[in-house]
Amino acid sequence: MVAVPTTDKSIDDAVHRHVETILASYLAERRAELPALARTFAQAVDHLSDFALQGGKRLRPTFAWWGWRAAGGDQDGPAARAVLRAVSALELIQACALVHDDIMDDSELRRGHPTVHVRFTQKHRAGSWLGEPERFGTAAAILLGDLALAWADDMFESAPLTGPMREAARAPWQAMRAEMFAGQYLDVLAQAEGDESEERALGVARLKTAAYTVERPLHLGVALAGAGEDVVAAVRTFGTDIGVAFQLRDDLLGVYGEPEVTGKPAGDDLREGKRTLLVALGLTYADRDGHRAGAQRLRAALGDPDLSEDTIALVRELLVEVGAVAELERRIERLTATAMSALDAAGLAEPGVTRLADLAVAATRRDR
Amino acid sequence: MVAVPTTDKSIDDAVHRHVETILASYLAERRAELPALARTFAQAVDHLSDFALQGGKRLRPTFAWWGWRAAGGDQDGPAARAVLRAVSALELIQACALVHDDIMDDSELRRGHPTVHVRFTQKHRAGSWLGEPERFGTAAAILLGDLALAWADDMFESAPLTGPMREAARAPWQAMRAEMFAGQYLDVLAQAEGDESEERALGVARLKTAAYTVERPLHLGVALAGAGEDVVAAVRTFGTDIGVAFQLRDDLLGVYGEPEVTGKPAGDDLREGKRTLLVALGLTYADRDGHRAGAQRLRAALGDPDLSEDTIALVRELLVEVGAVAELERRIERLTATAMSALDAAGLAEPGVTRLADLAVAATRRDR
Repeated sequence: MVAVPTTDKSIDDAVHRHVETILASYLAERRAELPALARTFAQAVDHLSDFALQGGKRLRPTFAWWGWRAAGGDQDGPAARAVLRAVSALELIQACALVHDDIMDDSELRRGHPTVHVRFTQKHRAGSWLGEPERFGTAAAILLGDLALAWADDMFESAPLTGPMREAARAPWQAMRAEMFAGQYLDVLAQAEGDESEERALGVARLKTAAYTVERPLHLGVALAGAGEDVVAAVRTFGTDIGVAFQLRDDLLGVYGEPEVTGKPAGDDLREGKRTLLVALGLTYADRDGHRAGAQRLRAALGDPDLSEDTIALVRELLVEVGAVAELERRIERLTATAMSALDAAGLAEPGVTRLADLAVAATRRDR
Repeated sequence: MVAVPTTDKSIDDAVHRHVETILASYLAERRAELPALARTFAQAVDHLSDFALQGGKRLRPTFAWWGWRAAGGDQDGPAARAVLRAVSALELIQACALVHDDIMDDSELRRGHPTVHVRFTQKHRAGSWLGEPERFGTAAAILLGDLALAWADDMFESAPLTGPMREAARAPWQAMRAEMFAGQYLDVLAQAEGDESEERALGVARLKTAAYTVERPLHLGVALAGAGEDVVAAVRTFGTDIGVAFQLRDDLLGVYGEPEVTGKPAGDDLREGKRTLLVALGLTYADRDGHRAGAQRLRAALGDPDLSEDTIALVRELLVEVGAVAELERRIERLTATAMSALDAAGLAEPGVTRLADLAVAATRRDR
């Protein structure tokens, strides 16, 4: 098991540590409840716990927490622990999303460690078990992702929220999960169809990242604080714009990021054939400029599992040359600016506003 | 879309029809809520809805409903519609379980129709899309199963239960999902390890079928009616015994069932290498009787995707000859008898008791 960080700091001063502590104790509690018959499953659950606790920026609970604070939630008030517990459940949705995403993309590494399905594939191989190792790894990871999703709901429901808080939280909680699966599906479909449109790439960014990572967690946070429609609308605008900007930054990191920083092999997005806005604009601009060889190279690179470092380097040059990288930077800047205006206009409380602005900058800056 | 049956009958007289009606309207409502951006996902959701509505015995909601009625719930009282809605959500957990199970087993058919991942694999192939058709099919089915699981929780939470009802329902609802995933994992692990023990086969039957299909749905039903510890304990004993007997009947059908009745190819359990009690006892008895050729044939048959009809016929003969089939019939009889005693002793109300007894017989009888 991973050592769980504890902290003497207030929640405000260390949201992600508090989230990790509460998450670790919830996972341990649920593991202990499993019937004796399920001992081998409890061992499998340890891989899920390790995965959920071994890293990650805890972005979603952090956005939700600061949404709650900015809309008037009191960190020293009676509801603070319940809200912390409720928003920490977002990390279990994320555990499901990542474990299942890694199966779908057949990713080997996540946060610098072997992915869950790869761990179970290796277990099968090491034991010289019957059947195909990959099939076993996939099955175990599907089930553990499912468990994480079920436990996310259980954890959320177990937070001692008041009736009106629970009622207000329902809409964002429900929308967030549905929109996340919708975004993932659009992403997979765009890869399969070889969709080159800017529209589709933005749709994926809007649902898979913006709605799920920023907009709905913020919506959840302000709803828990009893915010009215105007505040909800303002933070949703802020969340959508920052969320899309965050995805565009991620597009750039997926092609230009250093493996030591991203925890994934260089150029992995290209190898997986991700239909990002960066790629969509790269193809549009290359076609427009008559850069045929470049466009052809980029199209051939997308989804090629054996993509070489040399080709990745050429694709990187092309995307800069045709102006796609500069256009992404411009859009990130523009989205960040409109997001900040929406935040300023929302009439929210300090220190929430400043912390949300800081989070926005951190999520969209150049050097993550 | 599948036509949804409606009925003028009371809930008692047509539980499964009422479940289907409420399920269909819930799925339509959630589909309509998806954002415009997710139009292609809504089309994918139609496959999930078709799957969830196109068949199935609605066993889990039916056990839960009759548990509620037997513990004093009034079908004409103010809580009846809320309880019906809450227990109908069990079918969405089941949709997730089946869609994901079919990926893990690589099953082509379910209830006589192509499985969800196969439908999406075919869609990919028909469109000559990029990448591997099977990978796309798997991804789509993972996401739709996840959505079904998230919607199960949403549907359950949206039932207008009173605070005490919701509180009482929490334990069985949480345990049911965790135990189901645990049972599925033990099943997959037993296949991989080639586990031949009776103990493991019974552990899978206990968790995957008994707990998830009968014991916990009944527990949920009586909890919603405010039952005390004694009643909960009695229906859990009844549910466990009937549930294991149900799995043993399923073991027999998995080897001897007619494809027209089961909706699956003959001998599918052998081909998939399922480690059932039937197989465990067959191997134990064949070894004990020195029936070496038979034991060897059975071991070789397990998990052989190209298993011939002739070999299946020989395995069938062997399992009868060594006495494994007769032993399973004896156990089914014994478990049904102990279950009925527990039910009789529970002091429950009519018509609930009679209906639960009828369900028990139907679930464990010879000719499904």
